[in-house]
Amino acid sequence: MDIKTYKKDFDHSYTLGAFPTFELLEAMPENIISVFSGSGFTDIEKLESKCGEKNVPFGINDKVINKLSDKGNVYTAGIFKKYTQELDCAKPHVVLVNPSDMGNMGTIIRTAAGFGITDIAVIEPAADQFNPKTVRASMGSLFRVRLKRFLSFEEYLGYLEQNGGKENREIFTFMLNGRKQLTVAECPKPELYSLVFGNEASGLPDEFLDYGTSIIIPQSELVDSLNLTIAAGIGMFMFTNAKR
Amino acid sequence: MDIKTYKKDFDHSYTLGAFPTFELLEAMPENIISVFSGSGFTDIEKLESKCGEKNVPFGINDKVINKLSDKGNVYTAGIFKKYTQELDCAKPHVVLVNPSDMGNMGTIIRTAAGFGITDIAVIEPAADQFNPKTVRASMGSLFRVRLKRFLSFEEYLGYLEQNGGKENREIFTFMLNGRKQLTVAECPKPELYSLVFGNEASGLPDEFLDYGTSIIIPQSELVDSLNLTIAAGIGMFMFTNAKR
Repeated sequence: MDIKTYKKDFDHSYTLGAFPTFELLEAMPENIISVFSGSGFTDIEKLESKCGEKNVPFGINDKVINKLSDKGNVYTAGIFKKYTQELDCAKPHVVLVNPSDMGNMGTIIRTAAGFGITDIAVIEPAADQFNPKTVRASMGSLFRVRLKRFLSFEEYLGYLEQNGGKENREIFTFMLNGRKQLTVAECPKPELYSLVFGNEASGLPDEFLDYGTSIIIPQSELVDSLNLTIAAGIGMFMFTNAKR
Repeated sequence: MDIKTYKKDFDHSYTLGAFPTFELLEAMPENIISVFSGSGFTDIEKLESKCGEKNVPFGINDKVINKLSDKGNVYTAGIFKKYTQELDCAKPHVVLVNPSDMGNMGTIIRTAAGFGITDIAVIEPAADQFNPKTVRASMGSLFRVRLKRFLSFEEYLGYLEQNGGKENREIFTFMLNGRKQLTVAECPKPELYSLVFGNEASGLPDEFLDYGTSIIIPQSELVDSLNLTIAAGIGMFMFTNAKR
């Protein structure tokens, strides 16, 4: 196999670094083509043994590692086949509408997994979840969630309907002009919900005011807005934690 | 003045981009040496008028802009003198212990300002709050807060004591082995507090278990930890919001 720097149209991608590579090995060994380590990696034995356990081809190859490591601080890489997934429509969802930054997308996936939200809808156009930068920002938690891309929010709603996930589901759209303030004292406690977040720069368009309950996270006049990943983190924490 | 790429030992720094430059002009015009705009900037009139209002020298200079813009997407820059500040010890604080990433530091400053926490202690060694990357990640909210660096957490505690800010203050340290779970149902509601967050990779050392109340944000086993900025965002939101 000829190893090339990742491009979006590849049917495979890479985990760069030990942490996401071990996560890939744990969660999705069946999608792995091969795992490589540089000769200087300190945990070669553990990695080789894990690859053996999961029946994954393993090799020590500095040339491959150097080729994939853009900043020279990568000692391990996994090559995996891309895959598509369906969402579990009986579970809460996070919906990312047009996220453009791969680091943000990875951080939100990591946070969702951290709060036990394992179903993520992504509305196009959107950053590539398989780009090694996204995978790395997710700390490999991409492999712990189900993620499905939709061409529009309407398509996502249709998918919910087809899969019996719409009827009892409440939709919460996070917007700077949202109508309901998110507070500790009065956080909604729905059984089944979708938390919807917009683009980093432009947020959600006004039509999202009426899909369900629009939510604003109260903030001071000292800032223009919160960072998307922070807003999403607070929203996910509050909705998953409120019922404790 | 000879414009050079920023270095940490300079006694001045730069705002890169229109948003942080306008924030600097609003919040700290007295520290500005000069503001420059590229000839292609779309809001030159507004920027020039604001500089006039604040008695700040303004110039159109593509050479300066190109010199400062590392990625070529900067059209405006401010040059400002670095400054030192004291904290208001009658107010809640965020304490960042050894934050190493400039983007994270900027994001946390922005979030703190967003929740009205305007006093930030930084414990060395730590990222440089004046680096243009930090300033940009803060979206210019660096100029809306007070930030003071300390050589150690002990020095910070001594500073509180000297300034009458220790007696009624509760200290909350955010740690993966924290003893109290942060929940919506039982969020502490202290009047005066310091929220303490550790380094991105290593968190807070165990000695921080006993400075006050150690807090863990409950999370699933699907992740190793939350991203620092997310944990800090949730902590700041909960403590500032709980009393609403």
